[in-house]
Amino acid sequence: MTRMCIGIDLGGTFTKFALLDEQMRLAGQCQLDTPAAQGPEGVVGVMAEGCRQLMQENNVSPAQVVGVGIGSPGPLDLDAGVVIAMPNIPGFDHFPLRDRLSGKLGLPATLENDANAAALGEHLCGSGRSARVMVLLTLGTGLGGGIVIDGKVLHGAHSMGAEIGHMIVAPEGELCGCGQRGCIERYASAAFLALRARRAVESGRESSLAGVLAAKGQIDSRDVNQARQAGDALAAEIWDQACYYLGIACVSLARLLDPDVILLGGGLAKAGEDLLEPTRRHFIRQHWQLTPPRTRLELASLGNDAGVIGAAGQAWSVLGKR
Amino acid sequence: MTRMCIGIDLGGTFTKFALLDEQMRLAGQCQLDTPAAQGPEGVVGVMAEGCRQLMQENNVSPAQVVGVGIGSPGPLDLDAGVVIAMPNIPGFDHFPLRDRLSGKLGLPATLENDANAAALGEHLCGSGRSARVMVLLTLGTGLGGGIVIDGKVLHGAHSMGAEIGHMIVAPEGELCGCGQRGCIERYASAAFLALRARRAVESGRESSLAGVLAAKGQIDSRDVNQARQAGDALAAEIWDQACYYLGIACVSLARLLDPDVILLGGGLAKAGEDLLEPTRRHFIRQHWQLTPPRTRLELASLGNDAGVIGAAGQAWSVLGKR
Repeated sequence: MTRMCIGIDLGGTFTKFALLDEQMRLAGQCQLDTPAAQGPEGVVGVMAEGCRQLMQENNVSPAQVVGVGIGSPGPLDLDAGVVIAMPNIPGFDHFPLRDRLSGKLGLPATLENDANAAALGEHLCGSGRSARVMVLLTLGTGLGGGIVIDGKVLHGAHSMGAEIGHMIVAPEGELCGCGQRGCIERYASAAFLALRARRAVESGRESSLAGVLAAKGQIDSRDVNQARQAGDALAAEIWDQACYYLGIACVSLARLLDPDVILLGGGLAKAGEDLLEPTRRHFIRQHWQLTPPRTRLELASLGNDAGVIGAAGQAWSVLGKR
Repeated sequence: MTRMCIGIDLGGTFTKFALLDEQMRLAGQCQLDTPAAQGPEGVVGVMAEGCRQLMQENNVSPAQVVGVGIGSPGPLDLDAGVVIAMPNIPGFDHFPLRDRLSGKLGLPATLENDANAAALGEHLCGSGRSARVMVLLTLGTGLGGGIVIDGKVLHGAHSMGAEIGHMIVAPEGELCGCGQRGCIERYASAAFLALRARRAVESGRESSLAGVLAAKGQIDSRDVNQARQAGDALAAEIWDQACYYLGIACVSLARLLDPDVILLGGGLAKAGEDLLEPTRRHFIRQHWQLTPPRTRLELASLGNDAGVIGAAGQAWSVLGKR
């Protein structure tokens, strides 16, 4: 009887489900809308429904399922399996998500931070395969990430590890929403890169992005890259600045953690080589001379599936021993 | 029969030896001069001699000894047990130190970086006891350190982890000997803090330290602290700047690793509260507002014994399973 783990990636809009076998191969996937307006009980109901649907569609019996891994936005109390707060779905304050779903399904469950789950997913099935030490930077609305060491997610002493977006790369720099100054998130996430472009345009800097802003009412990171490709100087400057700060963050990560690989993922990384190449250049330029760079910079490969795969992988890692 | 591990801390001037029992209690210590001029074979001879002396003085038979842990300056190839190079003792290039000592003693041996060994020592017997995640910053000639997670030293993928002194805290800042700019070592080690004071005096800044420099031909970090205590403005500025950058490094370490505690050790930490209090203040001021600081900043407690204790602890951790 093939043993399976189920992964769930709980998002504000969609909830994703995946089956992962013991060889860390994806054996099935599905997706449901997250009933955010129905509060935690409604959300748990949909999570259980998705698991049943996934098993049915793939001819997997509950007896085959070792456990269910949940990847959730946070902050979380990982040891207790409790959501402390959830910015995008109301009603989750101090909600015992892990045990509530486990009770409803009659299956053991684990709870993991969604960014950590994505890192574990890339480690198990993506660009981070076979890495002893791996870091994922997810460059989206914010800058999230995860650290995997010897196959284990780094949680820290208080479930608050790998808040990579809030490394300080610019002392006395831009004020971050978290209250710190100079967090890498303010310089290199997709959203803040776009915001920096907008502010420059609004302050009167000459750029083709002024036309984009006038036409669409906003600028996103793709607009900045397109303008840069078309030769816009402001766009090139802002894009390069993000890569410069990413290079600094990667040097500090290399010094502290000595990873095999740092992966760039999230919306901004859809730019592919346009992001990777200048980031590598800044990394190498700022890297020490004592040894050649051993840490590789690469693109993440699983896209939006990293989280759900990693959630299932976490269930395997915690519940799969027998 | 009480089982023991022996720790050896190989330094450029002295080699230290310690016996550690299975409860991580120090059961004996001794020290010999390092015969640096005699090359690696002479050094290995003294290492073996010290082990025998330590056993004899403490009535421990070789049969009781589980293994010998060596803490050594590096860079090292930890997996292979090989010294790649040793700045202070010539002739050690690519020398298989672990196996050579092991062969000479007829006992299994382990090799660990001396800074990592000190961190493990503080974790096992010092201020880092019971920490799930712990960081040691050794503020001496340079700025070294080690990271201990769940009782294990973080080595990284290429034996180059925890090079904490080379985190970048000041982009485009001072050029470090390693080739990077803005490494924390250049701002907060004992030697570089003193060097900054000296350069300021030599550039004509008014300070009582000018008299120290004239009288002694040099300034050390203690002179800076004494001048600061006596009300010298330049000394206060330079001391505070070191604490400021330490605060930034500690914020980034807290975000990445979420340690229970960051320990300040090494020569500069002999200033005790004079260093700790302003560093804590800068840490708290720059720390995010999302949660109160959970990571404590404390002084290391084992002083120069941390390394030899940690070396023995590493032997226990690698060789002690039965």
